[in-house]
Amino acid sequence: MEKGRIRVTYRISTECSNASARARDICLEQTVEVTEDIIRDQWIGDHIVGKIEEIREIGENTFHVIISYAEEITGYNLSGLLNLIYGNISLKRGLWVERLDLPLSFVSHFRGPRSGIKGIRERLGICHRPLLAAPLKPMGKNPEALAKLCFELALGGIDIIKDDHGLADQDFCPFRERVRLCMKAIRKAQKETGRTILYFPSLTGEYEKMNALFQWASEEGVGGILAAPFITGLDFMRYIAENDRIGLSIMSHPALTGTFFNDPCHGVGHQVLLGTLMRLAGADMVIYPNFIGRFPFTREICQSINNALSEPLYHLEASFPVPAGGISLSKIPQLKEAFGRDTVFLVGSSLFSRSDDIVDNARYFLSLVESEEKKTPLQER
Amino acid sequence: MEKGRIRVTYRISTECSNASARARDICLEQTVEVTEDIIRDQWIGDHIVGKIEEIREIGENTFHVIISYAEEITGYNLSGLLNLIYGNISLKRGLWVERLDLPLSFVSHFRGPRSGIKGIRERLGICHRPLLAAPLKPMGKNPEALAKLCFELALGGIDIIKDDHGLADQDFCPFRERVRLCMKAIRKAQKETGRTILYFPSLTGEYEKMNALFQWASEEGVGGILAAPFITGLDFMRYIAENDRIGLSIMSHPALTGTFFNDPCHGVGHQVLLGTLMRLAGADMVIYPNFIGRFPFTREICQSINNALSEPLYHLEASFPVPAGGISLSKIPQLKEAFGRDTVFLVGSSLFSRSDDIVDNARYFLSLVESEEKKTPLQER
Repeated sequence: MEKGRIRVTYRISTECSNASARARDICLEQTVEVTEDIIRDQWIGDHIVGKIEEIREIGENTFHVIISYAEEITGYNLSGLLNLIYGNISLKRGLWVERLDLPLSFVSHFRGPRSGIKGIRERLGICHRPLLAAPLKPMGKNPEALAKLCFELALGGIDIIKDDHGLADQDFCPFRERVRLCMKAIRKAQKETGRTILYFPSLTGEYEKMNALFQWASEEGVGGILAAPFITGLDFMRYIAENDRIGLSIMSHPALTGTFFNDPCHGVGHQVLLGTLMRLAGADMVIYPNFIGRFPFTREICQSINNALSEPLYHLEASFPVPAGGISLSKIPQLKEAFGRDTVFLVGSSLFSRSDDIVDNARYFLSLVESEEKKTPLQER
Repeated sequence: MEKGRIRVTYRISTECSNASARARDICLEQTVEVTEDIIRDQWIGDHIVGKIEEIREIGENTFHVIISYAEEITGYNLSGLLNLIYGNISLKRGLWVERLDLPLSFVSHFRGPRSGIKGIRERLGICHRPLLAAPLKPMGKNPEALAKLCFELALGGIDIIKDDHGLADQDFCPFRERVRLCMKAIRKAQKETGRTILYFPSLTGEYEKMNALFQWASEEGVGGILAAPFITGLDFMRYIAENDRIGLSIMSHPALTGTFFNDPCHGVGHQVLLGTLMRLAGADMVIYPNFIGRFPFTREICQSINNALSEPLYHLEASFPVPAGGISLSKIPQLKEAFGRDTVFLVGSSLFSRSDDIVDNARYFLSLVESEEKKTPLQER
């Protein structure tokens, strides 16, 4: 396959007279990291140094700059890609990654989501409605208590039950014990309801331990695992996702990504970081804060992530968006309208505080996503 | 050993009437991730939920909030620590991690720098002056050309030669070929000069490949490796650093960390991220942008990182600060005064552009750090 170029659209904040110098600075900083005078080899200047494809003024002192990079600089892996698009310039100011366009010749090195929307729906046997997810919390409960909660949620109709992402392999809640008991609860609920329920345990920890625990969890029959790739390494998530011996689906958590989005003039666009990169790294479901919870994400941001998770990207399956972060059950109808059918709604506190009857709370949650769907004939959707 | 608590000092931007509510919000968000009403277990409320130790107004609408967390929440690893101090709240606003105080009971789980300042100096046999480092660049040169440069730098008196951090295992510069040729150049220069020179190759890439390549590089006799832990995973760097089978020293690169520092009201303090955490993760030398280069770091920021790298921290060796990022040779005397003796100066472009005679350029660089030292008797330092 012919080698392609990776195109990054940066939004840069600078004075007009300075725009092309700043664009050129990105081209050098992200590749050769030397001043112009040191580049004496023509191939390096023409091919390795980033190339300015376009500079367009989009507002006062604001420009879209498209820079293309030779894909082989990445070494065809995610660490190389992250470094190429934003490694050094993250340490500068006023540079926002707006868009990432990847050539097939690069993307062909990645499998992407193992299951994706299609695969997760097939496993659950549910095609007509958004999916329901709930977390096992609060941290500090022992494995027995979490397994009891897991059973009640499963019995009430939750499709996907996940650990809180702070759970790992702590003394007060060891990973193996938790997974063993929760899987027992899941199997019992599956038997009672005839439904499939997927359990995604969380594990962060020492590299030398994680592989073995993931493989063990896979053999226990978990639905997949919850990963926080910007803590444990984006390529490590890809490695778990693509590893057929482990064979697990992935739900990704956005922990520690917040500073990428905090300053609207400097960072990496939500749709790039939580959209394209998570999908490329194999996340089947991508958790992020919804627009009416306790985090400062807007509706437009959520939409941009959803687009990046589902737009055509060669052979890559589409991934589920998982809006979360303080969703109240009362907002589900509104969110359902905003997010559409191919969404996993993750609800925590609101589901637990509605009443002491968790099974009933879960049933109520299910009724909120099912009710309207039933009014609409399938062919109209 | 009795279990201790991890104390985090947050600087928060909020109205006075809101300070204690925001502090309480951090305590919940970083641990149990539920609303107050759901915490019914007293042990969870008392022990797992973060505890406000102090709230102090330090300026208009600005507070220092000290929160302590039970150390076992981390699972005694770096991924758990990162998540505990800033995972979810990174996605909020106006929260800055100012200080991190770790109990011995936590730190005892980490070895820290394998060599540290002491070990690197011992290996080089240099105790009386700052060390000199230079990068192999620009990216795009083939292994032969980089090895030639490596030889010239080594011959001229550079102590530590490192790959540019964008180098990995690309087709145009394969890792094994580069390391083999550069090590040959290093051995030749060592023989000619009678000095020890350390070579730190860079590698980012697929998780499943890195281990084997690091071990191979170790067997080839490299001085250590260059890692970018906020791209490949902080715990992965710790794993390489602590792995006795690999047995390599580590130079860390700050790629992709910039958004942590971009907004002075929201992020993680330089001294925490590039200081304490890098040292805990085993970095023997920590690269960061100096205060008169092309990045927006101030002299005070540099000093705060240096303090965190060298202040007493139980059994952990002190790590070398490696100021970099556009250092001009003409600024070395000024930087030497600011940074002191226990520093590695990393100079790139300015070293290469001085003249076409790289050996002579390196000799000149060496003369800049040696000259004044020779004027000062050792006992006065």
